[in-house]
Amino acid sequence: MGKIGKSSIEFDIKPRISAAASVVGQKEGEGPLGSLFDKIITDPMAGKKTWEESESEFQRLVVELLLEKSGLGKKDIRYIFAGDLLGQLIATSFGIAEYEIPFFGLYGACSTMGESLSLAAMTVAAGYADNVIAMTSSHFASAEKQFRFPLDYGNQRPLCATWTVTGAGGVILSGGDSSGNCVTGITTGKIVDYGIQDSFNMGAAMAPAACDVIYNHFMDFETGPEDYDAIYTGDLGSVGHQILIDLLEKKGFDVSKVHHDCGMEIYDADSQDTHAGGSGCGCSAVTLCAHILKELDNGDFKRVLFIPTGALLSTISFNEGKTVPGIAHAVVIEHL
Amino acid sequence: MGKIGKSSIEFDIKPRISAAASVVGQKEGEGPLGSLFDKIITDPMAGKKTWEESESEFQRLVVELLLEKSGLGKKDIRYIFAGDLLGQLIATSFGIAEYEIPFFGLYGACSTMGESLSLAAMTVAAGYADNVIAMTSSHFASAEKQFRFPLDYGNQRPLCATWTVTGAGGVILSGGDSSGNCVTGITTGKIVDYGIQDSFNMGAAMAPAACDVIYNHFMDFETGPEDYDAIYTGDLGSVGHQILIDLLEKKGFDVSKVHHDCGMEIYDADSQDTHAGGSGCGCSAVTLCAHILKELDNGDFKRVLFIPTGALLSTISFNEGKTVPGIAHAVVIEHL
Repeated sequence: MGKIGKSSIEFDIKPRISAAASVVGQKEGEGPLGSLFDKIITDPMAGKKTWEESESEFQRLVVELLLEKSGLGKKDIRYIFAGDLLGQLIATSFGIAEYEIPFFGLYGACSTMGESLSLAAMTVAAGYADNVIAMTSSHFASAEKQFRFPLDYGNQRPLCATWTVTGAGGVILSGGDSSGNCVTGITTGKIVDYGIQDSFNMGAAMAPAACDVIYNHFMDFETGPEDYDAIYTGDLGSVGHQILIDLLEKKGFDVSKVHHDCGMEIYDADSQDTHAGGSGCGCSAVTLCAHILKELDNGDFKRVLFIPTGALLSTISFNEGKTVPGIAHAVVIEHL
Repeated sequence: MGKIGKSSIEFDIKPRISAAASVVGQKEGEGPLGSLFDKIITDPMAGKKTWEESESEFQRLVVELLLEKSGLGKKDIRYIFAGDLLGQLIATSFGIAEYEIPFFGLYGACSTMGESLSLAAMTVAAGYADNVIAMTSSHFASAEKQFRFPLDYGNQRPLCATWTVTGAGGVILSGGDSSGNCVTGITTGKIVDYGIQDSFNMGAAMAPAACDVIYNHFMDFETGPEDYDAIYTGDLGSVGHQILIDLLEKKGFDVSKVHHDCGMEIYDADSQDTHAGGSGCGCSAVTLCAHILKELDNGDFKRVLFIPTGALLSTISFNEGKTVPGIAHAVVIEHL
């Protein structure tokens, strides 16, 4: 069933992205992609009592939108592959519980949309399910509270820092007809540790993992940058973006003409004070759902390599002096 | 490809458990299953500087043992499906990084061994991989530090509380020859919330999820308790065990004759002061690898339903007054 190279699958039966939904916060709504999102929630609490409940509500709304757009009922969704950044995935588990869909909880830091898409595509392509949801979320306030400083503290942020996206994005992958936007292949990442210890410089921590999976992808599929209309990393930001281009150039590939980064496109760095760009699981998820899939739909892109990138740290590992390893998962999305 | 019922898969090609390994701490080594584990590490720090690094070392040792037992190299393992209880899965990511195996990070609380086995079996049965690892771990001290109180505080524990197992367990699932211990089917759980708010009484929080997935399993496979030599839940402990039997009886199934709980078998509750039993991802993982698979090998069991059970809480969700929802994933293991 399509196993190729060292860490890739080329799907014989190509799962179709039959619906996509994105729900974001006010800042994301005010950014360059603002008009493309399905829903903008201006209340950072989303009407709830805590940041975490708010993030759960973003996920709940994405599932609601996906069911609405697809015309499917919750019983038609066989599995949900989802996760978030919070310890023990509480945003996800409290967000999706009411839908009573068999659930695989995933954690790949900000690479989770790549992980969920990969496993969802494997599941549909193998015939295990007709419809599955792949989804993830992040929330600026719940992430700052967990990973950084209390919001009220108002700390200064270095220029290499990124801004956690408040938003959730998800898709339904479906079997049957392979037309429209389909997942045609995946390359699964491994943990790559370059010894970065600055948890504010996640772009530098993740770029080597992105380089590794992109290089493996090119090798496994016997392709190069010229075979993709766009190569979208998740949230390297402007610092990681440059590192990635340099690292891949050393391996013989010039991706500078086709490389985009969701984190660099979701905010206007100059006017929105977001420094190196956006980050968080939600960053690549909502950019995929609101922007990339539409570019595929309208013919601007035909084949995209989508690579959410994750920094594998916790406050405990950071405080204990550990490095920040990275991971990234590559997903080929083609308009067929 | 074997999709049956509402949430189950019956595998046409049945992935074989080609190797299993368990590494535990001193207390587990002194328990009733002590002689069955591959390795007992009496130093709770496992020679490392922190509890978290110690837990990583347990995972690293399991992969080392799996490769040694199977005669495979790290390049022969196509994917690793693994996770742990710690925020952002740091035990796993720092434990397995050196093996450079494409990695899917999972979080299902203490149900993670069921989740990893399910996804690993789906992957092998679909032909995506010849050999994959499914693994998980927990560590008493890293879990207490994260979820409960500082160890030095020496708090009293209620009698319904369980003791987090220090240990890691994992298997290699392989394609090709379907003989010996094989994963023949799975039923995937959904989040079940009975409104339990006592984070010390995890057995009560998880039993409804176990009941739900077992009931769905019986419906999907058209089986009942009499079709299994043993039905092993993960870590309900003595409190959750009784609740499960009562709940399933109300649904028309008497599992009292075949129900076992890994948490009740790993310690001697009377002499080891572990109250309701063992818990943690490692509990069901090491009991599977050291005990259940051997009972299948020696012919005492022919078909086992293995159901790791998880309580989906974090200290944040608990402190914010949220409930403790449960999840459980059922895996059929048969000796063919």
